[in-house]
Amino acid sequence: MNSKERYQTLLDKMNQYNSGEIGITRVAYTNEEQACTQAFMRMCMDAGLAVRMDQCGNVIARREGRMKNLPPVLVGSHLDTVYQGGKFDGVVGVIAALEVVHRLNDKRIITDHPIEVISFACEESSRFGVATLGSKAMAGMFDKEKYRHLKDRNGITLEEAMALCALEIDTVEEANRQGEPIKAFFELHIEQGPVLEKENKKIGIVTGIAAPVRYAIKIIGAPSHSGTTPMNLRRDALLGASEIALELEKIAIQEQPYGTVATVGVLEVASGAMNVVPGEVEIKVDIRGTSIESRQRVVNHLHETIHYVKQKRGLDVICQELSFEEPVPLSEQIITLTEKICEQKNIPYKKMPSGAGHDAMNMMKLCPTGLIFIPSVNGLSHHPDEFTSLEDILIGVDVLEEMVLQYATCNE
Amino acid sequence: MNSKERYQTLLDKMNQYNSGEIGITRVAYTNEEQACTQAFMRMCMDAGLAVRMDQCGNVIARREGRMKNLPPVLVGSHLDTVYQGGKFDGVVGVIAALEVVHRLNDKRIITDHPIEVISFACEESSRFGVATLGSKAMAGMFDKEKYRHLKDRNGITLEEAMALCALEIDTVEEANRQGEPIKAFFELHIEQGPVLEKENKKIGIVTGIAAPVRYAIKIIGAPSHSGTTPMNLRRDALLGASEIALELEKIAIQEQPYGTVATVGVLEVASGAMNVVPGEVEIKVDIRGTSIESRQRVVNHLHETIHYVKQKRGLDVICQELSFEEPVPLSEQIITLTEKICEQKNIPYKKMPSGAGHDAMNMMKLCPTGLIFIPSVNGLSHHPDEFTSLEDILIGVDVLEEMVLQYATCNE
Repeated sequence: MNSKERYQTLLDKMNQYNSGEIGITRVAYTNEEQACTQAFMRMCMDAGLAVRMDQCGNVIARREGRMKNLPPVLVGSHLDTVYQGGKFDGVVGVIAALEVVHRLNDKRIITDHPIEVISFACEESSRFGVATLGSKAMAGMFDKEKYRHLKDRNGITLEEAMALCALEIDTVEEANRQGEPIKAFFELHIEQGPVLEKENKKIGIVTGIAAPVRYAIKIIGAPSHSGTTPMNLRRDALLGASEIALELEKIAIQEQPYGTVATVGVLEVASGAMNVVPGEVEIKVDIRGTSIESRQRVVNHLHETIHYVKQKRGLDVICQELSFEEPVPLSEQIITLTEKICEQKNIPYKKMPSGAGHDAMNMMKLCPTGLIFIPSVNGLSHHPDEFTSLEDILIGVDVLEEMVLQYATCNE
Repeated sequence: MNSKERYQTLLDKMNQYNSGEIGITRVAYTNEEQACTQAFMRMCMDAGLAVRMDQCGNVIARREGRMKNLPPVLVGSHLDTVYQGGKFDGVVGVIAALEVVHRLNDKRIITDHPIEVISFACEESSRFGVATLGSKAMAGMFDKEKYRHLKDRNGITLEEAMALCALEIDTVEEANRQGEPIKAFFELHIEQGPVLEKENKKIGIVTGIAAPVRYAIKIIGAPSHSGTTPMNLRRDALLGASEIALELEKIAIQEQPYGTVATVGVLEVASGAMNVVPGEVEIKVDIRGTSIESRQRVVNHLHETIHYVKQKRGLDVICQELSFEEPVPLSEQIITLTEKICEQKNIPYKKMPSGAGHDAMNMMKLCPTGLIFIPSVNGLSHHPDEFTSLEDILIGVDVLEEMVLQYATCNE
């Protein structure tokens, strides 16, 4: 079987595990996801790897290297999906890692360093509201007491869901690999955005992972009759919200060279009615960037806009910060190496930030980390129609293979 | 009992009829409203009037004039309320009409023309979605086949609700007074807006009743990931909606001299989420004015804005017209008379349009019609805190009395 057929076969096998809803639903710590994970572990054993599952549910499948005691090179992604997700998010990177091993096996290459194929547990936040749990556990960032009681839509806690997978949350620290020497971590993932396709690039070399600042902003004016209240006596909360949304767009466009983005994704009019001037509106704002300075300029402009709109329209505005996370720059050395690989292979690439979170951001706490993107058709993600062609995936695998080979080779 | 005490006593009696919810709930064709109407009929009989209820549920209480066969002067408003409404909307005008009769009785004045105190049935649209049913019936505008099957929130049809009040919808034409000579109709109503209070005027002389043009506008872009979609590759439906709302405000402010107003009262983001660029938004737009030309300029600008926003943002926009009603100018002669009365009595007044609909707009089909407003504190209306001081109401009654007297006096 050639690499192309093998990749497709493995990918199809993984996507058999699906709860039967529209698209692919293989949510973390459910029967479908666990069955998929078990199948993946058997595939790894078939490839000659020593396979274990850690106490958080991460799969670690090890291919020993030539030299004893050298730190391993890690490569992988995740198998879980959102509800009604697609066939590519996460799983393409896990299968790519396994395919790298198959290729080394085919070529009978024994690397100096060991290689570990990783499938991270619970990367998606859709079940418990918190993302990248597996890599958090591995990087010592799993806050057991905080996460234990998180509930899914059926009221099942994270602790219970893990217990149903024979994972005891109280032993989750044993998954922590801090202090252990690790050579590097590599992840291949779909872009989940439209940039590569739009610019006709095959590889995105991720420079850093943007983190969101998020606000819930309540805008309070005065409800009044839409027929009897003259324009100059209105305190229209929706018009205040509209101004804030458009100003956010304006400043984010100015910050486009830095890759910063700003979005009002939620807008709710309290008791909205056709004949009532809106008296109260809540918006939710998400501002992301890998440049802290650029992101902060957008945040500053948001606060200035709020102040201006309050004054101008006689509104009250309550701005609540929901989260404020730090962006994670990825390894410069790996970025440079990946550029070289792409140039040598004549693959069109683009250095770009990642607007979405990934396990790679946590792994950066443990070791030099590299993340590469492959194109997403129409930028679709977390959607049944999510698509990346097999040809594009295999270009990614080629690059990933070369990254792993170079880092798994001893330079001394 | 002086006029002030009498007015307050009658008003308080009417507001005893209330379903017990917050504020006053005396919804058309319910037990509370019918009990209130019956009590009002007894009060009219106590004032020496000949009282009947027509086939739509309108109360007509007649005080005969000196001269046979002269057309009557009508005066009144409505007793029904919205759900959780206030103590003033409608009922102040009905009691004011009765108070005018009491004053004439006290002064032993017999007018040339008969006077009819009217309490219109079902003025509010909150139960069946259609307003001013009683005056529509009287003006021959009651569309029986269209209205018969209208349902309230409990699934009761208008036909059933009327039948529970012993009103047979099939005989509603008998309430039609088209062709009958009527001298004039006068209505006193709270402003339901903030203008009189703001400008410290005591009487609003209504020049015409604005009618709404209403649209439901669906704005369709593309949902995408808020972190991974660069600003220039977005098709954000919410930003398109925001631009439309702000442009509508801008043009309505330009049209302020004509009293035209425009409102986006409803905005709904389909599947709004903090990490999703909004892909679909629906807004509902209400544009009102008494000047058809001014209102049309706002409508034209709305369509131009939609066109511009579509082009600029790559959005699809579906604009559905929900209603398109004609404004109703009121009697010039009555407006001039009312101005004179206010000037003679040294009452600060303002000529103004009505942004809300009233029974007066239907009555204009039957006879010259005048509508006067008294101040609403904070412009509140359809709200438990709706308030107008007794002093302000009585100033209105003074003006109403003079209007009735002058029209009920034979000039030949």
